[in-house]
Amino acid sequence: MSVDTICALATTPGGALGIIRISGPQALEILSHVFSKNLTDAKPNTVHFGHIKDGTEVIDEVLVSVFRAPHSYTGEDSAEISCHGSRYILNKVLELLIQQGCRMANPGEYTMRAYLNGKMDLSQAEAVADLIAASNEANHQMAMSQLRGGISTKLSQLRDQLLKLTSLLELELDFSDHEDLEFADRSELLSLAKNINNHITHLAESFETGQAIKQGIPVAIVGKTNVGKSTLLNALLKDDRAIVSDIHGTTRDTIEDTIDINGITFRFIDTAGIRQTSDQVEQIGIERTYAAIDKARIVIWMVDTEPAQEELINMNKLSENKKLILVRNKIDKAKNTPFTIVKIPLIEISAKHGTHLSNLEQAIYEAADIPTPQQSDIIVTNARHYDALIRAHAHLQRVLDGMAQNISGDLLSEDLRLTLDTLSEITGGQITPNEVLGNIFKNFCIGK
Amino acid sequence: MSVDTICALATTPGGALGIIRISGPQALEILSHVFSKNLTDAKPNTVHFGHIKDGTEVIDEVLVSVFRAPHSYTGEDSAEISCHGSRYILNKVLELLIQQGCRMANPGEYTMRAYLNGKMDLSQAEAVADLIAASNEANHQMAMSQLRGGISTKLSQLRDQLLKLTSLLELELDFSDHEDLEFADRSELLSLAKNINNHITHLAESFETGQAIKQGIPVAIVGKTNVGKSTLLNALLKDDRAIVSDIHGTTRDTIEDTIDINGITFRFIDTAGIRQTSDQVEQIGIERTYAAIDKARIVIWMVDTEPAQEELINMNKLSENKKLILVRNKIDKAKNTPFTIVKIPLIEISAKHGTHLSNLEQAIYEAADIPTPQQSDIIVTNARHYDALIRAHAHLQRVLDGMAQNISGDLLSEDLRLTLDTLSEITGGQITPNEVLGNIFKNFCIGK
Repeated sequence: MSVDTICALATTPGGALGIIRISGPQALEILSHVFSKNLTDAKPNTVHFGHIKDGTEVIDEVLVSVFRAPHSYTGEDSAEISCHGSRYILNKVLELLIQQGCRMANPGEYTMRAYLNGKMDLSQAEAVADLIAASNEANHQMAMSQLRGGISTKLSQLRDQLLKLTSLLELELDFSDHEDLEFADRSELLSLAKNINNHITHLAESFETGQAIKQGIPVAIVGKTNVGKSTLLNALLKDDRAIVSDIHGTTRDTIEDTIDINGITFRFIDTAGIRQTSDQVEQIGIERTYAAIDKARIVIWMVDTEPAQEELINMNKLSENKKLILVRNKIDKAKNTPFTIVKIPLIEISAKHGTHLSNLEQAIYEAADIPTPQQSDIIVTNARHYDALIRAHAHLQRVLDGMAQNISGDLLSEDLRLTLDTLSEITGGQITPNEVLGNIFKNFCIGK
Repeated sequence: MSVDTICALATTPGGALGIIRISGPQALEILSHVFSKNLTDAKPNTVHFGHIKDGTEVIDEVLVSVFRAPHSYTGEDSAEISCHGSRYILNKVLELLIQQGCRMANPGEYTMRAYLNGKMDLSQAEAVADLIAASNEANHQMAMSQLRGGISTKLSQLRDQLLKLTSLLELELDFSDHEDLEFADRSELLSLAKNINNHITHLAESFETGQAIKQGIPVAIVGKTNVGKSTLLNALLKDDRAIVSDIHGTTRDTIEDTIDINGITFRFIDTAGIRQTSDQVEQIGIERTYAAIDKARIVIWMVDTEPAQEELINMNKLSENKKLILVRNKIDKAKNTPFTIVKIPLIEISAKHGTHLSNLEQAIYEAADIPTPQQSDIIVTNARHYDALIRAHAHLQRVLDGMAQNISGDLLSEDLRLTLDTLSEITGGQITPNEVLGNIFKNFCIGK
């Protein structure tokens, strides 16, 4: 249990308001030394107007919200001071709190205390950082699902099944003198173990999708020079409705090359045009284009006239194992002359005039082939969880192999226990080593 | 009275937390449509944990603080939603509130409502913006003094005296048939009017100091080439202890050329060395130096060897009407050979080794000649207030002149009324035109 009382700024300085959080056994006592009212007997979940003072000098007029253990974020006595957002004031209030015995909180220390005090499990704690970082709907929903116990519930079900499997194996042991019983049970056990393993594999496989959603799905726009690749990119970017735009003081993140379609982020890779060239510099550009295509999950191949057989072969070769979208640009100029050789579906647009761009966006979204993120879906987004799932799968595979070889139950129980323990690492049900906790919380922001 | 309900983000996005404020008659009803609990009957000054929802989708787990008219910042029913600091969440919550009938608040609209609902006067409302912008102790204290009614109290006293003067003049009128009375009263009235005028003048004069504190006091470092001017500037800047430095995520304001000494900001102007030159470019630099000196309130004249008579004359001429500090640099090299011609006090330093820099800082602070900012001192910092004081002074001067010419009381009362009205503009006691209010609040941040 932590015994010291921590304080930190929980907002970015520069706004109208700034929030300072205090948490720990001395929170209300320390705060009372610098606040105009004594809060040591304040009722939980109440707000108090007053001023923060340094001796007789008034530092700020503030609102203090009081929370009491265990019904607070951290599970400890705590308070939030809502100050005017001046950096001078925020620094001064922190200074005063530190003088009175608080120490500055480490990154994520409030959430770490929430975990240590049983307010949330480890996967939920990790979701807090993801939630704060989420910049689009899909990321937000994945984090919110995890915060609300999505993965925890799923793991808890798997854990129950593993415990059932363990007890059945023990039962088998008790009755091992009855020869006929053993083999009947084994097939049931095997089916149960396989089922658990499928679930673990399914969860682990969702990590690829989770990563794609988290980092944005790479899309390469490829084609000959002057077919309008950059015009298309600009048109797609312009179409991206930045919802923050009407909020004064918010700076838009750099969205130069990403757009959101239906809440999924796509990272666009603009590429040099592909053509036969003897220019060495241009050749380097074209090689980079091939490398970009290699990283993409989706390739938009752009033409303005019907591609020759040679280009079609090149296109099919380069987009192997990718989703390919063939786009015909400049339909305003070409007067829609139909293509004769190309047989694959074609999206016809005018990048310059923005014609049919929504069709293309829909095609891009569908090519991503990402299940619509629903809060009920569980998608693993965390590399630590993925790693634990892969190891749990390996342990359980040994159990399965052992069963196939008719190894006796007591010899399988160690691998079963390892499977359970490894899955528990995700939610931190077992005692989690300090260095693991340190790694988890070091990337949090201060004040959370 | 405002009838619509406003919402805005009150913090800068990007922190652990973000605060959204709602204020207006429908605040709690609107909030109840998107919050997991009904808050329409919530007790004032209570905090509620729950989630913000868009239909069945959970957007965030939040804390809501409830305030009730008239005991809130704005004087209206209002609430603060403490969300996770993700831009996605903050935008989404604002969107939901707007869908339910809120509108986005204009800059300073919460404070404007506080003023319109009689929670603070106009000078206090202006102090809110100054308080948020205050970056050092002196600015903070001036703003806090104004917020806590410093100038309002002073003006209220002057107003009482002006009313007393008015009633005495009316009394004089009633007794004007008693010849002897009139002249006895006049001397008392004249003394009272002069006293009020002195106070108004004193307040108006404090504006220069207020501006200097608000904008930083300009200091020019001047001297021949290679006497160590830039080294001194760097040494002074390095010595500036930025108190924000241990708070992760706060970016220090550009302090390239300002330092705080005892809570006062000094703006340093590094200048080109002065010497006779035929180089045209260098000559332009030297002319800029003269211009810089012209803007400075304090001139640090730096030498490393005893200046010649010619330089002393130049120094005295250039620093006319300025505070002059003569600094002898490189005392580590010169082995402290005493100067023989120079009679004015000298500060001996080594900029390179940081020797005696604190003496120099003390000298700079004293040269600024700024009264130590105490919360009891009233310093006018606002150009609108200054303008009103100057005009009030002009009206009262006409009263004084009229008295000197023995003009009868009833003829003076119009100017007395104008004096009162003009002083009232500062606190907004009279009805304030919308365009004046618009000008005052347009420079506020959103959410305050």
